[in-house]
Formats: sequence, structure tokens, C-alpha cells
Amino acid sequence: MQPNPQGGADPGAAVLAVDVGGTDTKSALATGGSELLDVRRAPTDRPVGDGPDAAGDAVVAQVARLLAEHRAARPRTRIGAIGLIAPGLVDEAAGVGIYSANLGWSGYPFVERVAAATGLPVTFGHDVGAAGEAEFRLGAARGYADVVVTIIGTGVAAAIFSDGRRVSGGGYAGELGHASVPGGADCPCGASGCLETVGSAGAIARRYARSSGREVDGAREVFALAAAGDRLAAAVVDDAVRGLAYGLSHVVSVLAPEAIVIGGGLSAAGEQLRAPLQRSLDSLLSIHRRPRLLFAELGPDAGLIGAGLRAGDLLAGSGR
Amino acid sequence: MQPNPQGGADPGAAVLAVDVGGTDTKSALATGGSELLDVRRAPTDRPVGDGPDAAGDAVVAQVARLLAEHRAARPRTRIGAIGLIAPGLVDEAAGVGIYSANLGWSGYPFVERVAAATGLPVTFGHDVGAAGEAEFRLGAARGYADVVVTIIGTGVAAAIFSDGRRVSGGGYAGELGHASVPGGADCPCGASGCLETVGSAGAIARRYARSSGREVDGAREVFALAAAGDRLAAAVVDDAVRGLAYGLSHVVSVLAPEAIVIGGGLSAAGEQLRAPLQRSLDSLLSIHRRPRLLFAELGPDAGLIGAGLRAGDLLAGSGR
Repeated sequence: MQPNPQGGADPGAAVLAVDVGGTDTKSALATGGSELLDVRRAPTDRPVGDGPDAAGDAVVAQVARLLAEHRAARPRTRIGAIGLIAPGLVDEAAGVGIYSANLGWSGYPFVERVAAATGLPVTFGHDVGAAGEAEFRLGAARGYADVVVTIIGTGVAAAIFSDGRRVSGGGYAGELGHASVPGGADCPCGASGCLETVGSAGAIARRYARSSGREVDGAREVFALAAAGDRLAAAVVDDAVRGLAYGLSHVVSVLAPEAIVIGGGLSAAGEQLRAPLQRSLDSLLSIHRRPRLLFAELGPDAGLIGAGLRAGDLLAGSGR
Repeated sequence: MQPNPQGGADPGAAVLAVDVGGTDTKSALATGGSELLDVRRAPTDRPVGDGPDAAGDAVVAQVARLLAEHRAARPRTRIGAIGLIAPGLVDEAAGVGIYSANLGWSGYPFVERVAAATGLPVTFGHDVGAAGEAEFRLGAARGYADVVVTIIGTGVAAAIFSDGRRVSGGGYAGELGHASVPGGADCPCGASGCLETVGSAGAIARRYARSSGREVDGAREVFALAAAGDRLAAAVVDDAVRGLAYGLSHVVSVLAPEAIVIGGGLSAAGEQLRAPLQRSLDSLLSIHRRPRLLFAELGPDAGLIGAGLRAGDLLAGSGR
């Protein structure tokens, strides 16, 4: 890791939080809590060329440009560190993006390269891990020692906390979406039966479109159709709920969390998701410690908030 | 918890390790490593009467008697602490047996009562947790930070380590045997599809006896029959392997351990278990961190060794 050019030197400064996604990249300034300033969203830059570092280099260039834009927009705000998060497999301790099928990098040293390009100290984390950490420190998972924050959107993944500490598995933990469940189908990851193929927001929209022959505007519309009596939509939602309950029942058997916090796009379904999920999960449990099912509190920018918290830790001298 | 009558006062002493089982209770003296002295096995005392504390009280009385017997056998060995372990749900931090269906207690304060009966400092732990801790400190799991030790015998349970620390879930973690797998049947625990009904050593013997109409001497005989070409035995072993691989694939997705250590009675099957289990597990994984499948090294007394280690920690002042 690049030595932190200003590590711990500017505790009163703001930080730049950047959430690189498969389609869009979000950025904002943060000053310690859950409040974000100057939130921006722009298409994620495409790589130039196809060298092994092209995908990572595109992110570095975009972060440097966003830093300039945020500085220009708020010239009197000092930016003291950068918190970058991304999807895929992330080695947070080493500051390296292990692999992202979607964004195309493999073994890219983000902390080192972003620090070199910007002159600022940098943290690099997993998007779901950062959202989970934000919920753990400021949101629905606050006050629990053993808690799992599941983000259900395009995929299904989780940030796991045991005894108040993150369980990272070297960057590989929490991949609930790639565990097999009854009703799961072949998955682009190469395995079959993956929860993500039936229980993610993406799968709900795709499966309904396929069975009805009608395109929909995401899982939210499928939930609305199910509530209005559409049987195909109800069946797709049922399959998703059963798959999610099954996957979570294994999480409960293995980890016994006190609470499971549901975030991501699918959490917008509210009680229409929570009530049947609770029933389905309960039916799979016996001697287990039964977790509370809660919804995330910090909304779709939870990852950005978590990225800001980590960069803030760096400024305060308690982060990497 | 009872104050430790001699806590930290006698670091050169031996400890008494006691492993209370559903049928037999094992005991031994230990002095710090994996060596056990004066190993004894006796039927577990039945409770006298049926008061709410009868089951726990029977254990306390047996431990006090065993202490006297070990002292009589080795009059020149000072015994400075007791490490007690038991099955079921265990709150190790509070020193309480939460629940044991098999042995019949519920919310019994073992540390307090054994300390009061013997005048010695006491630790109380889960049998699988203690075996896992012994493998983690002295056996096959040594050197791994993220590792799962699975004990497959009458049941299927695991001790989980993340970043070198035990994941306990308040005493409820690691209950792999009570997670649903394809091919699982109704379970005495009240759930259905539990791994324990198909993948445990007990289930292998029972399922073969039922399908063949012939009693067998445990899972070991079923493995021997399968190796000798018995198709029913081979099918029962196949079902067990597939159930175990399925359960472990969820462990891998959730925790991403570097290694999974297999202990307990079923580990005696050796490569006849490991090779197909590895193949079956590999077929369920894709982007995951693939764990090494290893066998436990400390044998059937691993739990007793772990109980001794914990009691030793107490003497050394680093335990409870």
C-alpha cells in the first residue's frame, strides 16, 4: 500500500466517497456521519484499450476527475482522504480489487494507484461491505454484536458481523447469492442453483418477463402486479421468497445472527417481502436462535456513507 | 459466574478435563498440550428425580466423584482447575448449559455449581467447540485464520474461526446438522430436511439398516460394505456425501474458510469420504475461495484436549 500522503494529518477535513458501479458511479463529500454533500451520479467510465490494467486505470482516472469536480463545486471544503468502494471480490486489507466480472479488473491495486494519482490517503472496500458497515455503525444493525446485513439488488450478498467484528473471509465471505437453493437455475458464475438466479431483484424482473412475455420496470413492478392479483407475478415472488428464506436458513444455522438486515433495491417491497420471508424462514428453523428480520435504514446511498466512514477513520488515524 | 477460588494461583498444576456425553462421560488429567493422563470412561450418571435441575445436578455430582477418583489415582498431582464440556446449546461466556435435548438440562449454571461443589475454578464449553479449539491450537486447523472444524458423528456440528477468533453466535453458531439439504428427512429437532438426517454417521448406519433390513455396526461398516460393492451401502454413502457437500457449500459461500477440517467418527472413513466429498463440493463452487479439506489430527479425545486447554488458560490467568 502507498504510504498515506497526509494520513491522520487533517482530521477536520471532509472526505470524498466514491461508489463505482457496473453502470453508474456515485460520489459525494462526507464529514463523519450519515450526511452526504454534493452527491453526484455519472456513467462509469469505460476502459481505454484492453491492457490488463485498463479497467482499473479507468476507475483511477474517473476518481481523479471527480475529486477535481467536487473541489471546484466546493472550493472552501478541504478534502483530506478518499473512500473508494466497488463490487466483485475485494481484498480490503491489501487495498486490491481481486476480481470483478462486471467491471473487468483482476488483481488491481486500487489504494496504491488512487493515492498516487491524487496525493490523498485512500481506503478501498467492497460495496456491500461498506453498506453493511454503515448500517452497523449508524443504521438498522446498530447495537447488535452478531448481525448480517444482506443487500438484495442485482445480486445477493451480505456483510457479516460476529461479536462486533467484520467476517471477511479474505474478501470472499458473504456471497449468499452464489449458494445453491431449491428452484435456483444455472448461474453466469458457473455454478448452478444459485440464489441470485431466483431471489435477486434482477432475477425477479427477468423471470416474470420470461414467464409472462411482458417486460417490466424491475422487481418493484412485479411486486405491484403480485399485490394486484397477477398469478404469474405472485409465483415469481413466492419463488424468490422461498429461495431467500432457504439461503438465510443456512446463514442462521452457521452463524446464528441476532438480526438480519435487508437492504438493497428489493427492500423497497417492505412488508410484502418481510412478512412471507419471516414465515418461510420460521418454517425452516427449530432449535436455532431466531433472528429479527429488519430493513436497512440508510437507503441506497448506504455504500457511499460506509465509504465515507472508512475514509474518515483514516483521517482520524484509526483506519488503514 | 462463581469467583474462581484459586484462579491464576496455581499455574504449575494439572487440570481435570471432563467430556459429558449422551452415553459415556470421559475424563482425564492434562498439563497444557495435547497429552492426556489417566484417561477414564464411564457411563454418564442418570439424573435422580425429575426436578428442573436434576440433569445438571447429576453432572455436578459425577464431576465431583471423578475429581476424587483422579486425585486418588495420582495423589502427587495437584489439580488446579476443571474444564467441563457438554453437547447441546452452550453459553460459554456465561458458563451456562442453555439446552440439551439428549441430556435433559435447560438453563443450568454449570460453572457456578461445579465450582461450588469442588472448590476449583471451572470452565464450561461446547464439546464440538472444544474439539475445534484443540484442532485450531494444536491440530489440523493450526496456522489458519479462517477455518471451520466440522465434527461428524451422531450429529453434524462445527466450530468456526474467523480471523483467528471463534464465531460463537451466543452458543448457537455452527449447527450445520440442522440446516436443510436435498435428500434430508424430518428431524427430531422439529425441522425437516436436516443434514443430520442424511450426512451424520448415525444417519448412515440407520439409513442402511432400514434400506437393507440388516443391522450394522455403525457408519464404518456401511463404508466397508460400499467399498466391497454393496449397492445399497454405496447409495447411502453417496447420499451422505452429497448432503455434506451441499451443507459445506453454504458454509463456503457464507464464510469462505481457507480450510475445512473433518473430525468425529466419520473421519475414520478417510479417503473414501474425502475424495468424493471434495469432488461433490467442487461441483457446487465457482467464484468461491475453495477450502482445503483436511482431517482432524487429535483423534476422538480432541474435545477432552480442548477442555483441558481452556481450564489451563484459566490457571494461566488468560481464560474466564
